[in-house]
Order: sequence, then C-alpha cells, then structure tokens
Amino acid sequence: MAEAGPTVPESRLGYRFQDRATLELALTHRSHSAAHNERLEFLGDAVVGWVVAERLYRMHPEWNEGQLTRARAGLVRQKTLAGLADALGLGEGLRVGGGGVLEGPARERALASALEALLGGILIEAGPEAVRSVIERLFGSWWQSVPELAERKDAKTRLQERLQGKGLPPPRYLLETSEGPSHRRRFKVRCEIPERSLSAEGTGGSVQLAEQAAAEGLIAKMDHDRSG
Amino acid sequence: MAEAGPTVPESRLGYRFQDRATLELALTHRSHSAAHNERLEFLGDAVVGWVVAERLYRMHPEWNEGQLTRARAGLVRQKTLAGLADALGLGEGLRVGGGGVLEGPARERALASALEALLGGILIEAGPEAVRSVIERLFGSWWQSVPELAERKDAKTRLQERLQGKGLPPPRYLLETSEGPSHRRRFKVRCEIPERSLSAEGTGGSVQLAEQAAAEGLIAKMDHDRSG
Repeated sequence: MAEAGPTVPESRLGYRFQDRATLELALTHRSHSAAHNERLEFLGDAVVGWVVAERLYRMHPEWNEGQLTRARAGLVRQKTLAGLADALGLGEGLRVGGGGVLEGPARERALASALEALLGGILIEAGPEAVRSVIERLFGSWWQSVPELAERKDAKTRLQERLQGKGLPPPRYLLETSEGPSHRRRFKVRCEIPERSLSAEGTGGSVQLAEQAAAEGLIAKMDHDRSG
Repeated sequence: MAEAGPTVPESRLGYRFQDRATLELALTHRSHSAAHNERLEFLGDAVVGWVVAERLYRMHPEWNEGQLTRARAGLVRQKTLAGLADALGLGEGLRVGGGGVLEGPARERALASALEALLGGILIEAGPEAVRSVIERLFGSWWQSVPELAERKDAKTRLQERLQGKGLPPPRYLLETSEGPSHRRRFKVRCEIPERSLSAEGTGGSVQLAEQAAAEGLIAKMDHDRSG
C-alpha cells in the first residue's frame, strides 16, 4: 500500500505525524472503539494549559493571576476549541461509532476532544517545543482577544451588582445535582432570589460554569419581568 | 556586594537561578508586598500539570483517562507539594508579611504556592525541558505511589456502596456556600442521608474535594452510631 499523503488537518496544523497510528487514534471518538482518543485528550488538555499559561504570562506582565486565569479559561473553552477543530477540517476525519453523525453539544465535545488529542499526539511524537509552536499558530488571532476575556465581567458579577443597585442581598446558588465520573462531571446549579421569588437553573462542566449559566438565566428573567 | 551563593532550595532542587530576582519573587508571599509570587504560581501550576500528565501517560499505557486524572490529582495535591517544599527547606526562605509566621493551612498553602512559583520561574528562565527534569526529580519516590492513587476508592464511592448494602438510596450532596474569587474558591458541601437523619459537612478547594470531605465525615458518623 502506498504511503498516505498528509491529511487536511495535518496541512492546516502545520504538523505531519510520523506515526499514522497516533493520528488515527487521536481522531477516534470513544463511541467508535475501545482504543479511543481520551488518553491523548488528557495529555493534550494538560499541554494546552501550559502553553496558553506561558504565552499569556509573557504577553501580559501587568496582569495578576486572576486575570491570567480568566483569560486562559476564556481562551481554552470547548466552544473555541471546537471552532478551531472545524476550521482544521477535523469533522470529516473523525471516526464515530454506531454509524452515527454527532450533532449539537455532542459534536462540539467530540471536536474539541479530538483537537486536544491531536495536540497530545504531537507532544508525544515531537516534544514540548514542537507542540508549543503548533498551539501558538493554532490560536492565531485569538491571542488578540484575550485582554477582553481577562476583564469581562461575568454573569454572576453583573447579577450581584444589579441586585446591590436595588438594595437586595446577593443571590443564593444551590448545587442540585452532579453526575458522571469525576473527570467528566456535569453540574446543575439553581440560582435563587427569594426576595423576588425568582430562580433559574444552569448546567455546566464545573460548578463555576453552571453558576454562570444560572446567573445568565436569572438576568434574562429579570429583563423579561421588567419588560413584561 | 559579592555574588550570593546558591540557596538551600536551589541546591536541593538541582537548579541555580541566573536571575536572583526571579528566585526572590518566587519566595515572596502575597502578604509581604505587592510584587508577590502568584503570577509565577499560576505558571508553575500549569507546567506541573503538563509534566505530571505526560509522565503518567508514558508510565502507564494501560490506564484510561479516569485513572490518569485521579493519579495526577492524588500526586499534585497541596499537601504533597507543601511536604516537598518543606523537604527543600523552602520554609526558611519564604518572605511573609506582617512580621508573621504562617501556621496550619495557611502555611501549607504558602509553601505549595512558593514551590509552584519556583517551578514557574525555572520554566521562564530555562524552558520546558529543564523544568521537566527538575519536576521529575522532585517527585522522586512519589512516582511509585501513583498506581495506588489511580485505583483507590474514594470516600463517596465507599459511602455509596455501604448505603447500597443497606438497601438505601445514594446520599444527597448540597452545595451550601462557595467563597472567594474564582481562581481561589472554597466550597462547603453538606452530605445528607434523610432516611437515617444523618448529615455531615465538608469543605475544600473544589466541589469534588468538599464532597469527599463530607462523605468522609458521614462515614465517620455511621461508624460512631454503630459502635455507640
């Protein structure tokens, strides 16, 4: 069999795998077979965490650790990673089980995982400096958007400021459920303002994200009540 | 002024800082001055995450991502890091404000932070391969303890199995409070078994840790009830 040429994702990443099996593994969703990409994803997640942390640290000597943390969380989001994966054409190469095509949140998760797994594979094959170059190029113009991410007021802050403006105490956040194994949990949080008999639920992959979603929901309800 | 010789932590780490200001910054607690070690700690935390992830990935090809995640969390704990920092003699070099000596959990946190900050400083000065060697040596015999960490049944699992054995439903976990900025939060969780009118509280730096602490507390109460 002739040696296969580079795939679309490889050309766009600027990295050609020496070991084609690593590339294939990185593109294999856990629904496809027992040998899937989640180990490589674990590794890729860790290496992206380091590269983005160091880049932000060097780009922004004026930021404190809170700003660095927020900027990184804003940059390394599932939605962003899935968008980058789509731009690389990863969607077509993804090996999914059950003859199924993934859609919605499941597709977004699978794309983000496959991208992290590819980066984990590059780390294993070529080492930290090689994967650093790939990651820095990959995020491209996103690096310019980080100052906004570091300063953006999140939904919980906006909600609390709004309640303060009305002389109300801060909202209560109650963890309703948490499901799934520890490395892949989903949290559901309820945000309540007893004084206004208002509440909203939010879900996310961490309590922080679920609380933010719940706060967004509550702000939307307050807006709706005011206009209704 | 004569050039200072290497400090005790440097000799034990096997790394001598070229820039003495970086070493000093890494050892400066935020209670001491506005220029403190938390930015370097952010970086060190990220680089330790990557190095430990890659080492575990290579050492244990038979582990799935859940086992890798648990092993890393077991290894990179504040308690472990503080113990390693103590062994390096970091405690004496730490610059703390208010003329104060830190004690208890505050000391443990400060030591762990300073060690991560030192590693962040090495990354900045000498690059990823240099800091990788330092980290791999630093954890020394801890690498041998990871299989146990990956397999250990946690308190929540033990509690749930025990309740199942009695024909009871799983306990409920309620998030009571979460305090502090998003990058340094403390969670308090209540674990309840309504059928037995039992409950216990636990706190921790993540919901997962707080739930584990609450489950430990509840197991202790059940043991006590049985023997009482």
